[in-house]
Amino acid sequence: SQPQAKSKKTDFTPLQKNRILSLLGPGEMISFAKEKRSFAELESTLTLQRKKDIREMYEDSRENLLGKLERTITEFLVDMGFLEVKSPILIPFEYMERMGVGEDKKLSEQIFRVGDNMCLRPMLAPGLYNHLRKFDNVLPDPVRIFEIGPCYRKESDGNSHLEEFTMLNFCQMGSNCTRDELEYLIKELLDFLGIEFEIVADSCMVYGDTIDVMHKKMELSSAVVGPVPMDMDWGVNKPWIGAGFGLERLLKAKHDFKNIKRAARSESYYNGISINL
Amino acid sequence: SQPQAKSKKTDFTPLQKNRILSLLGPGEMISFAKEKRSFAELESTLTLQRKKDIREMYEDSRENLLGKLERTITEFLVDMGFLEVKSPILIPFEYMERMGVGEDKKLSEQIFRVGDNMCLRPMLAPGLYNHLRKFDNVLPDPVRIFEIGPCYRKESDGNSHLEEFTMLNFCQMGSNCTRDELEYLIKELLDFLGIEFEIVADSCMVYGDTIDVMHKKMELSSAVVGPVPMDMDWGVNKPWIGAGFGLERLLKAKHDFKNIKRAARSESYYNGISINL
Ligand SMILES: Nc1ncnc2c1ncn2[C@@H]1O[C@H](COP(=O)(O)OP(=O)(O)OP(=O)(O)O)[C@@H](O)[C@H]1O
Ligand SMILES: Nc1ncnc2c1ncn2[C@@H]1O[C@H](COP(=O)(O)OP(=O)(O)OP(=O)(O)O)[C@@H](O)[C@H]1O
Ligand SMILES: [Mg+2]
Ligand SMILES: [Mg+2]
Ligand SMILES: [Mg+2]
Ligand SMILES: [Mg+2]
Repeated sequence: SQPQAKSKKTDFTPLQKNRILSLLGPGEMISFAKEKRSFAELESTLTLQRKKDIREMYEDSRENLLGKLERTITEFLVDMGFLEVKSPILIPFEYMERMGVGEDKKLSEQIFRVGDNMCLRPMLAPGLYNHLRKFDNVLPDPVRIFEIGPCYRKESDGNSHLEEFTMLNFCQMGSNCTRDELEYLIKELLDFLGIEFEIVADSCMVYGDTIDVMHKKMELSSAVVGPVPMDMDWGVNKPWIGAGFGLERLLKAKHDFKNIKRAARSESYYNGISINL
Repeated sequence: SQPQAKSKKTDFTPLQKNRILSLLGPGEMISFAKEKRSFAELESTLTLQRKKDIREMYEDSRENLLGKLERTITEFLVDMGFLEVKSPILIPFEYMERMGVGEDKKLSEQIFRVGDNMCLRPMLAPGLYNHLRKFDNVLPDPVRIFEIGPCYRKESDGNSHLEEFTMLNFCQMGSNCTRDELEYLIKELLDFLGIEFEIVADSCMVYGDTIDVMHKKMELSSAVVGPVPMDMDWGVNKPWIGAGFGLERLLKAKHDFKNIKRAARSESYYNGISINL
């Protein structure tokens, strides 16, 4: 039966396999070796199913998964006493130098430069540092703020990286900035979202020691218990804690997407469903 | 009294005047000629008032005006049967050529290029064109979609332009794509938001004849009754209508901000209030 199985497999070219995989529903699987239908038959069946999915979804809610997750998290954090911040996405490149990105060769090569002096933010930390400094002695202690929005890094290899993704970063400055409090906040958020996780220790060039939050083998978040030496360059001189999450990774974990592209800002998928129909 | 008034005015340098103006509350005015307090006294009074404003706002809601307006409009349009789209912000520069931006010298000079082949979107039309084409014969007729998100143009002069702003674009394709329907949708939205407006005719290089929506002397929106010749290059061949609004301009109109910077993604203002305190 080996030769027979082989001849079955050659019915699908690599291009055809990719097309079929892209047309599967978010949780669906296929065994090409066992598949009896021709490419044309399979493609047209799946295309019809996906059209039906999109129509049902349209009747059902019409909300975009990424937009909706941003709203869900925003409501949750605002209720927890965090202030919603929206800072610039196009930022001075000088901020990156002040973040010590120059010393992290990998991250410094990932920055999208814009003109001579600007870049697309790869993280939310600079904007949050500036807000923490300005809100100190203005907001009640501890100061609690967060931002959700687009970030950019030149790294799109594998199933968990996008060049354009959406970061959530919450932080607290002043009283009670302990590792326990940080882990409590992470647990509250991920329990609320219904996403399983595990906390492990890690270290990174920019912040020194960090806590990583994993879902199976995928990093959901890196979190930091400050203070860190860099705080001085941002005019921040109180203890702080903070965590950064990728929203597309949260969606990938939640909906069991094989590839993070299904969760991205995209012209190929809508809410995890192919729209190349 | 002319010399006396003059000597009063010279109490404030241009830099000091700007500082004081930035510290005024969103609707507040000041007459420097009549002002009796010294710069230091005035600055410290206003600073205290703004700290109080921020604390009250924090106790009250903790939502960011720009984020909240995006959510309010999203809920409104989803209820009206529009599908929420989130497409890439970093797009192929080729899209701009296909939008005919090359023929509009002013707009083509406003594009932020990123690397050799990409740029920051100056408008939402390319992503919406691609979605309209892909949703044709998938979503029920008429197809109704919208997007809200960051757009970029090199033009920050005056009180109504930002380099980084937030666009809303809704559109409908198929049946009932008339000028009346377009004006009805615009009126429903702006009445819902409580913003006064006037509809006037205009024309633009990219789309030909457009309808402009004005608030006093500020353009809130340009709207188009398709089809237009360019549709062919995007594979769209049904009638359509659409309108693009700047969210920061809607906030400026609604809250009577003197300068649009108060409504922008910013590290200087939070919800229209200075945070350089
Ligand atoms: N390129 C990316 N695409 C999607 N999400 C990302 C990307 N880079 C980072 N994130 C998300 O942002 C979070 C915080 O950013 P951080 O700088 O810790 O990422 P990272 O440690 O470089 O992640 P990785 O090691 O997976 O590249 C990550 O845990 C992840 O959820
Ligand atoms: N630089 C900008 N800053 C803030 N909002 C903008 C900017 N450019 C455009 N908008 C908003 O987007 C809407 C649709 O974009 P459109 O291309 O019609 O702008 P425009 O005609 O170039 O506006 P203007 O003539 O004021 O420059 C505008 O009506 C406005 O509300
Ligand atoms: Mg990385
Ligand atoms: Mg990390
Ligand atoms: Mg313009
Ligand atoms: Mg216009």
